[in-house]
Amino acid sequence: MYVVVNAAMSADGKLSSRRRNQVAISGASDFERVDRLRAESDAVMVGVGTVLADDPRLTVKDAELREKRTARGEPANPARVVADSRARTPPDARILSGEAKTYILVSKAAPAERRDALTDTGAHIIEAGSERVAVAQAARALEAAGIDRLMVEGGGELIFSLLEADVVDDLITFVGPTVIGGREAPTLADGEGFVTGAFPALELAGVEELDGGALLRWTVQ
Amino acid sequence: MYVVVNAAMSADGKLSSRRRNQVAISGASDFERVDRLRAESDAVMVGVGTVLADDPRLTVKDAELREKRTARGEPANPARVVADSRARTPPDARILSGEAKTYILVSKAAPAERRDALTDTGAHIIEAGSERVAVAQAARALEAAGIDRLMVEGGGELIFSLLEADVVDDLITFVGPTVIGGREAPTLADGEGFVTGAFPALELAGVEELDGGALLRWTVQ
Repeated sequence: MYVVVNAAMSADGKLSSRRRNQVAISGASDFERVDRLRAESDAVMVGVGTVLADDPRLTVKDAELREKRTARGEPANPARVVADSRARTPPDARILSGEAKTYILVSKAAPAERRDALTDTGAHIIEAGSERVAVAQAARALEAAGIDRLMVEGGGELIFSLLEADVVDDLITFVGPTVIGGREAPTLADGEGFVTGAFPALELAGVEELDGGALLRWTVQ
Repeated sequence: MYVVVNAAMSADGKLSSRRRNQVAISGASDFERVDRLRAESDAVMVGVGTVLADDPRLTVKDAELREKRTARGEPANPARVVADSRARTPPDARILSGEAKTYILVSKAAPAERRDALTDTGAHIIEAGSERVAVAQAARALEAAGIDRLMVEGGGELIFSLLEADVVDDLITFVGPTVIGGREAPTLADGEGFVTGAFPALELAGVEELDGGALLRWTVQ
């Protein structure tokens, strides 16, 4: 499976403010680029923190891109995947709308009644890991379900887990023309963090100016 | 006074690991660029956290650059400035070596015995602010002392304070080919963080590839 992480961050590496409010970091050109990347993916993944903070739909916004997908025999929208160890996704979250298939990755620690409430919405539950989602195992389960191209849109806890599990192929960051600051604001890669000797090495595949910011394309070595 | 912030960060905006260990983020070309920028500055500033973690000298490493400075009638090295509200700089810190003049910016809360110990090393104490260094006021005092070009090398607490006080003209970040991760790792701009409506706006003045990373030059609007 090919895994690409795509996220917009401020010039200081933050995804949102310390209050978890969404910040308009990128502009129209980057929005279109992200929409195309979604349309090229079999599934789009976020962590439950992003669902709770932003309530995203993760659908393809451009009707032409959706039509091209259906013309290729694919569903109009890629599947959606939530990494959600304890099944905290609210059953009325937009990500559970009927516009696309949704997988919820949970751990054994997810309470049965919350799993059932999610299954009732039509979501597909995949269990991997005891206390937290074992992301490498979950990725294999998604691959077995036919997902060959997985796009990850954040947040920082999920991105760190995926880098730690060494399942990321490409990392694309839009670095926007603002500073968010804050020692407690969410960053591109949170989690426990790597320590000396364990930092993943990247290779810069491209740099371009876009929407007043810089688009950096990294390949994970 | 012209103020330029220069720092190397990982692709996820971190200055060092959660253990505060220095990480080799940039390479030889960026090192030379930073040395030239130091040589063009009247003073180089860091926060006391950086002094305690890294014990830097902040001198110009290239002998030719030092000679050019003396040929212009300037000291071989720019002055050094530590933002150090409580005068925690150890009297044996390298930044107090005789190679350059050193200013310690303190607040009223700095104990007299620690100020005296620093004065004994030849350091110049500037008091500004009651509990924490009032950075705008301190910047005016440095300007009055003849510092027209100030380079700031970090860390994230100081960089945030300076952005918050709106005294930064340019922000140069080297974004290196690695991920450090960690919700507690120091980032380019820490502090309390900005909230919606208060984010400083940047303008991208240039992007280039360097040492396998990206050099982003931002102008603060």
